[in-house]
Amino acid sequence: MSDEFDRIARLRARFNDGAGPGVLLGIGDDAAVLAASGDNLVLSVDTSVQGVHFERAFAPLPVIAARAFSAALSDLAAMAALPRAALCSLIMPAQLTEAEFDAVIEGLADASARYACPIVGGNLSAGRELSITTSVVGLVEGCGLQRSGARLGDRVCVTGSLGGAALGLQLLQRSAAGRAPGWAERWQNPQARIAEAQALRGIATAAIDVSDGALQDLGHLCEASGLGAELFAEALPLEPGFRELARELGLDPLALALHGGEDYELLYTVPRDAPSIGPGTCIGRMTPAAGAPSVLGADGRPLPLAGGGFKHFPG
Amino acid sequence: MSDEFDRIARLRARFNDGAGPGVLLGIGDDAAVLAASGDNLVLSVDTSVQGVHFERAFAPLPVIAARAFSAALSDLAAMAALPRAALCSLIMPAQLTEAEFDAVIEGLADASARYACPIVGGNLSAGRELSITTSVVGLVEGCGLQRSGARLGDRVCVTGSLGGAALGLQLLQRSAAGRAPGWAERWQNPQARIAEAQALRGIATAAIDVSDGALQDLGHLCEASGLGAELFAEALPLEPGFRELARELGLDPLALALHGGEDYELLYTVPRDAPSIGPGTCIGRMTPAAGAPSVLGADGRPLPLAGGGFKHFPG
Repeated sequence: MSDEFDRIARLRARFNDGAGPGVLLGIGDDAAVLAASGDNLVLSVDTSVQGVHFERAFAPLPVIAARAFSAALSDLAAMAALPRAALCSLIMPAQLTEAEFDAVIEGLADASARYACPIVGGNLSAGRELSITTSVVGLVEGCGLQRSGARLGDRVCVTGSLGGAALGLQLLQRSAAGRAPGWAERWQNPQARIAEAQALRGIATAAIDVSDGALQDLGHLCEASGLGAELFAEALPLEPGFRELARELGLDPLALALHGGEDYELLYTVPRDAPSIGPGTCIGRMTPAAGAPSVLGADGRPLPLAGGGFKHFPG
Repeated sequence: MSDEFDRIARLRARFNDGAGPGVLLGIGDDAAVLAASGDNLVLSVDTSVQGVHFERAFAPLPVIAARAFSAALSDLAAMAALPRAALCSLIMPAQLTEAEFDAVIEGLADASARYACPIVGGNLSAGRELSITTSVVGLVEGCGLQRSGARLGDRVCVTGSLGGAALGLQLLQRSAAGRAPGWAERWQNPQARIAEAQALRGIATAAIDVSDGALQDLGHLCEASGLGAELFAEALPLEPGFRELARELGLDPLALALHGGEDYELLYTVPRDAPSIGPGTCIGRMTPAAGAPSVLGADGRPLPLAGGGFKHFPG
């Protein structure tokens, strides 16, 4: 394995030394320097760990790395912030080859370019398993779009569709991605909804990204807003073929859509009388009842649901 | 093990929800929001991994955690930046108990308070080994104190003393910390030189923190400045008893002082004719010869030196 400083040199070249708008000093010193502006700064961090968030067999390394980057940026999207810069901290096992290292930084560089979010620094460390920690800084007016702003009667909306990433992951875990082309990509290539979030400015009252499962994430939004919520099962946006493939795999499509994580869509609320609900689909409404959100069937009655959502440390 | 969200609740309480000057929104949403100001933003990240940067036997968990926090802030000090906020991303093995988790956040909270640098967010993840990734944001005038600003003839200075952390680590690795009280603490409790760096504003031309060994870190400063350097072996600041204890352990005191990492002192340069050299000791000067710095003995002749300095991925 080559020297740490050789790796840093390749990384600097591939990340263009962290150059970008407002970047006064990018990669190469003890820290990076960004120009501040009239907007407020938004900070977040996300980690993707081999054996926990991904397996090497699930995607090529550039895809794994870009996915980790997107997941971190999704938190900025959920605040309606615009990405400004990222720091990437890699822990790498001794057996990771130079080609594999280059593949990781290739994926990070691609994602950085796609989101126009320069990688201005980071850290390389040895360790037993590969992990990618992405810290992101964004700019926002005020405090952006918080989890706590939902009001009684607000519509609950979601961008894109639900459960696709979880279905793709099921295929990958069964080494059956080829069986239904297109679904594995739903897990592999999430998109942080940066532009969609900008379109929600002045419309949405609250937002969260769907990382741990729509129902669990909606629960966080409810808790922060001091309200409850009802979802309409029939209204959940599902891709064509989703129900059929889920059943073929012996899975409950509704559970997958409600509990499947890592879609990285935006779950948000808009006032009932808003002229537009923005780029998403209306799937429910905010209610007075605090506690876990309920899901109503076609007959308007609550459906019995098993618990779900991703937990790192099950109780 | 308790639920991830229980852990987050305890962490929020202990970190006071990330409250601090200019923190508009701390822990609890998808991201934190900081007010921007007229100064520029400085960003850095550092990771501390069990089995690589520390062993559990080397210090209690609060000390390990505070040490990781200090190491990250040391990079801000090396830019002469003032800390503003931190994000802490923890990877934790399944067997980490609740008491151990609380010990980690206790150490982080203590360090956060000591540096007046609120922890405004973070991430919890499972993994095979404990790692603590600290992302820090600071403010600075201009681009702060860079590695690249040293000029020919500048004096090379260092705060505090050298090699103490490496000597302490030697004792810890031999389970002999009790043999020479005080030295293990040099490794366990480094201090980011935030105040010293502020005192260098308007005095120093370049700076770097001593994390990988003074000679290697000076080499980075030389490379960035396009110069060489000479150090005077006799001028290196060593604690009383350092030489004796090193020899007792069969170690070369000079090698330990030059190659021992993790002192987190500031290595900086000042113009030869500066009225003050700031809070450190003069240990050498910048020379025209590019390449690795040399070390001169009492007779003014270069000493033969073996390579050294910490490398994650030895070539």
